[in-house]
Amino acid sequence: MAHDPNCIFCKIISGEIPSAKVYENEDVYAFLDISQNTKGHTLVIPKEHTKDIYDLTPDTAANLFRAVPRIATAVRDAFDPIGLNLLNNNGEFAGQSVFHYHIHILPRYGKGDGFGAVWHSHESDYSNEDRENIAHQISNKLS
Amino acid sequence: MAHDPNCIFCKIISGEIPSAKVYENEDVYAFLDISQNTKGHTLVIPKEHTKDIYDLTPDTAANLFRAVPRIATAVRDAFDPIGLNLLNNNGEFAGQSVFHYHIHILPRYGKGDGFGAVWHSHESDYSNEDRENIAHQISNKLS
Repeated sequence: MAHDPNCIFCKIISGEIPSAKVYENEDVYAFLDISQNTKGHTLVIPKEHTKDIYDLTPDTAANLFRAVPRIATAVRDAFDPIGLNLLNNNGEFAGQSVFHYHIHILPRYGKGDGFGAVWHSHESDYSNEDRENIAHQISNKLS
Repeated sequence: MAHDPNCIFCKIISGEIPSAKVYENEDVYAFLDISQNTKGHTLVIPKEHTKDIYDLTPDTAANLFRAVPRIATAVRDAFDPIGLNLLNNNGEFAGQSVFHYHIHILPRYGKGDGFGAVWHSHESDYSNEDRENIAHQISNKLS
């Protein structure tokens, strides 16, 4: 299991830095985000030091997300939110501040609860043909 | 594989409704979100009809997320964004409008690009003891 001795989340996994732990298994560690944007705001991270989504191996990704439904359900069962978002930020512009991969679990309680999405559709800017072209540009990178 | 004949995403998977397909394997289907909040905005969904994060089995979750790093990397390689967010909405208040589980891949290009997070820390509202209590309330639901 790769660790980075300078990574704050690796230090949380090892116990060198304390955290409010929610769950742990062989592959995954989950703990409260200190900012508690919404009550119960939890981070789920791989124990394997992994910088971002591009750096996640398929197996690390699978083992990480395998645990997420159970943890999200426990957050729901503890605090009875009216909704729940999962968010993952990659790159500083997208909001990533710690470069160890993490998924935010954000239970939602109502307007002004500490999290929300700015959501602007550009549906009318694209034709179906434009969308086909965009899809092909992505799928070409998969082959 | 469970399907819901009234579900728009199940109809997309079967081909009954057309989509701009990005990727497909035995467990997963990925296609462009018609809204293209940001260029390359892609949805990744399990073929198994699953309502939300609480309804995802561990295996369906693992098989779904196993594919996400490769698709996100292809989006990056196609459009060279400056960041990338993953978002999943559960419940109407949290922004879910189709009740077949889906993860949004949102490449980011700059301010006003069509997506953003409203992010308000409540760190100063909680003591370490408060956070320990919250973590215990969640972990108690896991046992």
